[in-house]
Amino acid sequence: MDKIHGARIVVIGGGTGSFVVLSGLKNYTADLTALVSMADDGGSTGQLRDELGVLPPGDVRQCLVALSRSPRVRDLFNYRFDEGALEGHSFGNLFLAALEKLTGSFVEAIDLADEVLDVEGKVIPITLDSVSVCTDDGRKTLHHEHDIDGAKFHKLRPKLWLEPKPKANPSAIEAILAADIVVIAPGSIYTSLGPALAVPGVGKALRKTKAKKIYISNLVNKPGQTDNFAVHDYAAEIERLAGGEFLNYVIYNVHQPSKKLLENYAAEGELPVEIDAAALKNAHYKPKGAELLASEIWQSTNKKDPLASQRTLIRHDPDAVARAIMKIYFS
Amino acid sequence: MDKIHGARIVVIGGGTGSFVVLSGLKNYTADLTALVSMADDGGSTGQLRDELGVLPPGDVRQCLVALSRSPRVRDLFNYRFDEGALEGHSFGNLFLAALEKLTGSFVEAIDLADEVLDVEGKVIPITLDSVSVCTDDGRKTLHHEHDIDGAKFHKLRPKLWLEPKPKANPSAIEAILAADIVVIAPGSIYTSLGPALAVPGVGKALRKTKAKKIYISNLVNKPGQTDNFAVHDYAAEIERLAGGEFLNYVIYNVHQPSKKLLENYAAEGELPVEIDAAALKNAHYKPKGAELLASEIWQSTNKKDPLASQRTLIRHDPDAVARAIMKIYFS
Repeated sequence: MDKIHGARIVVIGGGTGSFVVLSGLKNYTADLTALVSMADDGGSTGQLRDELGVLPPGDVRQCLVALSRSPRVRDLFNYRFDEGALEGHSFGNLFLAALEKLTGSFVEAIDLADEVLDVEGKVIPITLDSVSVCTDDGRKTLHHEHDIDGAKFHKLRPKLWLEPKPKANPSAIEAILAADIVVIAPGSIYTSLGPALAVPGVGKALRKTKAKKIYISNLVNKPGQTDNFAVHDYAAEIERLAGGEFLNYVIYNVHQPSKKLLENYAAEGELPVEIDAAALKNAHYKPKGAELLASEIWQSTNKKDPLASQRTLIRHDPDAVARAIMKIYFS
Repeated sequence: MDKIHGARIVVIGGGTGSFVVLSGLKNYTADLTALVSMADDGGSTGQLRDELGVLPPGDVRQCLVALSRSPRVRDLFNYRFDEGALEGHSFGNLFLAALEKLTGSFVEAIDLADEVLDVEGKVIPITLDSVSVCTDDGRKTLHHEHDIDGAKFHKLRPKLWLEPKPKANPSAIEAILAADIVVIAPGSIYTSLGPALAVPGVGKALRKTKAKKIYISNLVNKPGQTDNFAVHDYAAEIERLAGGEFLNYVIYNVHQPSKKLLENYAAEGELPVEIDAAALKNAHYKPKGAELLASEIWQSTNKKDPLASQRTLIRHDPDAVARAIMKIYFS
């Protein structure tokens, strides 16, 4: 089908979740903007931040790749060196880091990456300040995303903030205010979505914009952090981290994975997100159930594909998610 | 002026010398091909060869950059990381290495770099085999380009060969045979031009092609290797390394650098290449003297410019060299 030229859609998130939503939506709208969380400090991204003093390239890279029209450059950007001094670095991260060092501007770096990758849409860092995400669950304060990623909060809902206190990127706020649809991508609540929503001004813009605000619920709970969460718990936590209610819709999956796959996950303590029909019925947003699961056959695809190389095999189908969003756009 | 669409020009060489000649010629001809020496094994290039097992990207990168239409990508390709684990690597080298690892083909890597850099012309490795240049001056055998670079031959003319014995890249041989002009760029005789000319089949193609073969003489002698060389000595050494006579023209500089600059060079044992008028008059090629020197003001230009960041300040002017070549094309 032709793309919808009037639909201004903004997607807020971090790495893989945004990748899925953007990959799907780019086939339906010509006006797509990714607002990217900027608190990543692990792996290749963390090393580049530490050694070169650049802003975190990893999540921006994934969003650029999702929106790229050029399959060859896309593969290149995701290529990860596996030997020598470069081991662990993805090429796209090095690209963004080199350009930021060269031009002194992360925005200019993204701008040129846009050009090289032939990106359809825009990728905008949600802040241009170098920040760390911090949490405090009442027992312990953590100061780094990669520490928070492994932390256990045991049913406590941690306080979450960014240090030093950042300014929102004005282009990000403008995009939210001008959007028809704002999607909160699925993703880790405390290391990906939280750091995006906790940027001062973002929550306010979400409450102010006339856009329809849609959250795409996660599929699997994170042990020690979101155990026993149902769909409405995720929605509530998203809104808490954004400083108040703003969601109009919550899209969630109703198609269960195979028993075998569920057993594999359960062995690692990962259980599917439950659906509490009564709680959803009483919510202030409209719940929209849909079959969102990707085919399990995906597990055998190309390792260069960032979806296929993820650890989990329970994943969203990009097209199914995009269709559920477009249905709301037309509702 | 408009470019000469009929002039098929091939430039053989390595790094900076080829960079100068290509930078100049690209303004005059639409059909420019760089054949690149492949024996570099020092610095960033050597580390990537060792650690990743890729072909040497450095000289190819310089030629691609010389032919690029995109100033921003050009700066990026020459950007050299100066901190952390990436220290010393130029971005363009990482680009070529990542793509070669990804695609398994150095030619495909160059092909995509071509696209990204918006290159006018072609860059062709003179061989696709991984080789080392070796020399034997009768007293000592050396097996690495970076050893040869620092060696002293004391007026001996070393035997020079490649190990393991490579095959010429068929595209390189075709380019030589189809050319109207073949230029041997200025450059280090034993580490840059020699390794290109010593590839089996290259000398034969140079003797067979109907192209006018032009050597652009160096400006300064290399202490311990080409001390007291005059223009005709360079030409003779070029032909010896190519296995026999093939030159039709030798272009050399007649404009002396300033006294102060000459003194700076002399302090490091580097003296200008002399002109022996009698020897040139009796040569089998036509000698062509011209004012080829770049303005000394260049020393203050942008450090990102690979010419300006060279150690020496006595350099060829790209446009003057190109004009001298085009004059021969039209003669």
